[in-house]
Amino acid sequence: MTASKAADFSEWYQEVLIKSGFVDYTEVSGCLAFRPAAYGAWEIFSRAVDSEFKKDGIENVYFPMLIPEKFLSKEKEHVEGFAPEVAWVTGAGDTEFSERLAVRPTSETIMYPSYSKWIRSWRDLPMRYNQWNSVVRWEFKHPTPFIRSREFLWNEGHTVFASEEEAYRERDAVLGIYTRMLAEYLALPGIPGRKSEKEKFAGAVASFSVEHVMPDGWAIQGPDFHLDGQNFARAFEIQFLSKEGSKEYAWQNTYAVSTRELGVMVATHGDDKGLILPPKVAYVQIIVIPIYKKENREQVVGYAGRVLSKLKESFRAKIDDREGYSPGSKFSEWELRGVPLRIEIGERESSSESVTIACRDTGKREALQFEELERGCADALSLIQKRLYEKAEKHLKESIHEVHGYEQFKGVLSEKKGMLHAPWCGSTECEDRIKEETGAKITNIPFDQSRLGGVCILCGKKAVKMANFARSY
Amino acid sequence: MTASKAADFSEWYQEVLIKSGFVDYTEVSGCLAFRPAAYGAWEIFSRAVDSEFKKDGIENVYFPMLIPEKFLSKEKEHVEGFAPEVAWVTGAGDTEFSERLAVRPTSETIMYPSYSKWIRSWRDLPMRYNQWNSVVRWEFKHPTPFIRSREFLWNEGHTVFASEEEAYRERDAVLGIYTRMLAEYLALPGIPGRKSEKEKFAGAVASFSVEHVMPDGWAIQGPDFHLDGQNFARAFEIQFLSKEGSKEYAWQNTYAVSTRELGVMVATHGDDKGLILPPKVAYVQIIVIPIYKKENREQVVGYAGRVLSKLKESFRAKIDDREGYSPGSKFSEWELRGVPLRIEIGERESSSESVTIACRDTGKREALQFEELERGCADALSLIQKRLYEKAEKHLKESIHEVHGYEQFKGVLSEKKGMLHAPWCGSTECEDRIKEETGAKITNIPFDQSRLGGVCILCGKKAVKMANFARSY
Repeated sequence: MTASKAADFSEWYQEVLIKSGFVDYTEVSGCLAFRPAAYGAWEIFSRAVDSEFKKDGIENVYFPMLIPEKFLSKEKEHVEGFAPEVAWVTGAGDTEFSERLAVRPTSETIMYPSYSKWIRSWRDLPMRYNQWNSVVRWEFKHPTPFIRSREFLWNEGHTVFASEEEAYRERDAVLGIYTRMLAEYLALPGIPGRKSEKEKFAGAVASFSVEHVMPDGWAIQGPDFHLDGQNFARAFEIQFLSKEGSKEYAWQNTYAVSTRELGVMVATHGDDKGLILPPKVAYVQIIVIPIYKKENREQVVGYAGRVLSKLKESFRAKIDDREGYSPGSKFSEWELRGVPLRIEIGERESSSESVTIACRDTGKREALQFEELERGCADALSLIQKRLYEKAEKHLKESIHEVHGYEQFKGVLSEKKGMLHAPWCGSTECEDRIKEETGAKITNIPFDQSRLGGVCILCGKKAVKMANFARSY
Repeated sequence: MTASKAADFSEWYQEVLIKSGFVDYTEVSGCLAFRPAAYGAWEIFSRAVDSEFKKDGIENVYFPMLIPEKFLSKEKEHVEGFAPEVAWVTGAGDTEFSERLAVRPTSETIMYPSYSKWIRSWRDLPMRYNQWNSVVRWEFKHPTPFIRSREFLWNEGHTVFASEEEAYRERDAVLGIYTRMLAEYLALPGIPGRKSEKEKFAGAVASFSVEHVMPDGWAIQGPDFHLDGQNFARAFEIQFLSKEGSKEYAWQNTYAVSTRELGVMVATHGDDKGLILPPKVAYVQIIVIPIYKKENREQVVGYAGRVLSKLKESFRAKIDDREGYSPGSKFSEWELRGVPLRIEIGERESSSESVTIACRDTGKREALQFEELERGCADALSLIQKRLYEKAEKHLKESIHEVHGYEQFKGVLSEKKGMLHAPWCGSTECEDRIKEETGAKITNIPFDQSRLGGVCILCGKKAVKMANFARSY
């Protein structure tokens, strides 16, 4: 590693992702190769979310990745939101298609014609379908791994309800799952809230998000949830016979969490030595490094093998017994890769049937007896997980600045960056002008409105909401 | 259901898939919507395969779905094999690309340029990467759900070894996993063997497959495994420094199992009442149907609720307590959907704290006491799973006919269909002429050569192999 996270975050971020072997660029600009540590973290996180979804009654389905152009155009705001970024399939083999097919940027328009066929009566509702797949959005701005990618992996929930109230109730369930799983697995805190009218999803009635703050003080949107009301139901004729016998348009929601979170995770926890992977999603949780000379090689490596076998019963553990590399260079390599716990085994450890463990985040070393191995490592890993979350939460809290008045707003934004928690009159005019003049947009209007008071920082009218403003990825 | 499986298999197959709610057609011809039961079966099966892969040391990765045309063209035979079916992305938004991008038909050509960068020395090998994704192959023939689809889900293993021997050893491990998981989860037997030179994969040195026989006597290829030798390594410059210090081309394998197996599963086990889902992958394993009148409704439904709660501790169970449907129509609906076990609860059952279970495959009914519920259902489900496999195995065995001589070959093929196990001289000329004249190709050359003997059915030269010939999907 050559770049410093504090001095040049953007360079550090790109360097750490590639050098650690987490991902690599490919010939297709903006599309990454996920190597095992990256895909493994996504697999563990997404399965955890999936398992919570299932407990809540959400069901998985799979729809085609290619969408006929006429479907994509059915909901006006939706198509306007996505058309500039859609990748088009125009033919196959030597044959030109008569109608172009979009590579899905999101699947509303391929799923809802089927919903329209499948849903007949209130008995068919709620229908809470979700899919895990990849989507393509051909960003023309400079791509950044995970953060602004042309292809990414995600879940897309597309659910249908018989009433607005039921649809609304799903919001807390789903945002709750996202928030808890992000905290528990990726050690990432976030701020849940409602998007402003200006920033809501193309086609939605109301959008909600969880927002993170990156180490450079810029905000980044995490998972989101959209109340679509009856907009898509009208465009796609999703109607049902109510209990009372009348024909009604259904109420719909959509929601997603994507591999962008892997970028936030890497950015949040890493340091100048490399990645720091939260133990729960670390591809290798423990690396065992035997340290020996010619004369004690057999004894040390033999004992290290016993330690590895024991560890493998409970952890994702590996041994680095490569010849021709110094212990120091091995330490550096596994630190770069972000493995949370290192176990050193030398002459002393093998003679006394003990190990020395070293935590990736603090560098603190500690001796454990062989019998304490499982319990000691489990404790150390769970403490690392906890510390990473607490550190991230501290950073998030310190990044939120309550401001009153436009001069203070601009001053804090340029000095401290981060998220500005400010009173706002609720008008898009003020939101627009603030963004134009300062570059800060409303990330969301946090659910926590306990500090509501005062007047709009721009126009001076009575504030109706405290909004979070930030420069945002 | 109106079609009969025995009288019109093809019509029955399409009818059962749609009417049971397993899948549906979409506006994109050849691309299916997988509803929860279909995706659920794939999820369980693919996770079982994935878990075996992991135990064997195979690691998951993810590569972009879009492949630059120049990459696709790097291996000559490979591009010739796929080019006629490739879907092309020619632009995004309003921008035309200077180079077309293929929607992956398979990922060799996007993965191997990265492999070429990542692999430096023998220490980096073996590199056993796999991905689970979806691919597009734009078949211009009439598509059939699962069997001939334009988009399907699969795994693609792409592994790299330092020696031919190691690469070769992976074959048995992977074919073993496929065969065992197909049997254990989808209750599908198959015949493992080697593909002929004519039928091998575009770019491979040797291909292997597991072949099934459909209820109509036509063969269908299941999972496959390819020894790629050094073909792709040469095309993509995948070289490594050997232990001895020389630069060598690497040895590669590829392998896959796809959602086509869901089609084989549906075709194999279903009957004229509908689907029969193997219990291990059934989305709903047990359906509870309370049968009541107005006067005992509370008692019966209350007890059925207790039964459901108990079942949910161990099984994927549901209750059908919809009003306004007769028990008979509910029975039919859940039979159509293929739920393996039905539990009927009426006056008698609720008074005596018992249940009546009915097996989907045999229709046999049996009484169980409440205390026996968990054990009794587990036994019934595992017996259904076993019976489905045994029935499929019996069908497979009865579909294989050993023939000697060309007249017998043609006679058996037109009378009995199925798989013809016949002596073959090994020449592509004979293979070609047999296919031309009879429509039967070599599905594979089974590993079991215990019946080898006699002379080639066509040319009369000494047989070098017993090959399996069949008309094939």
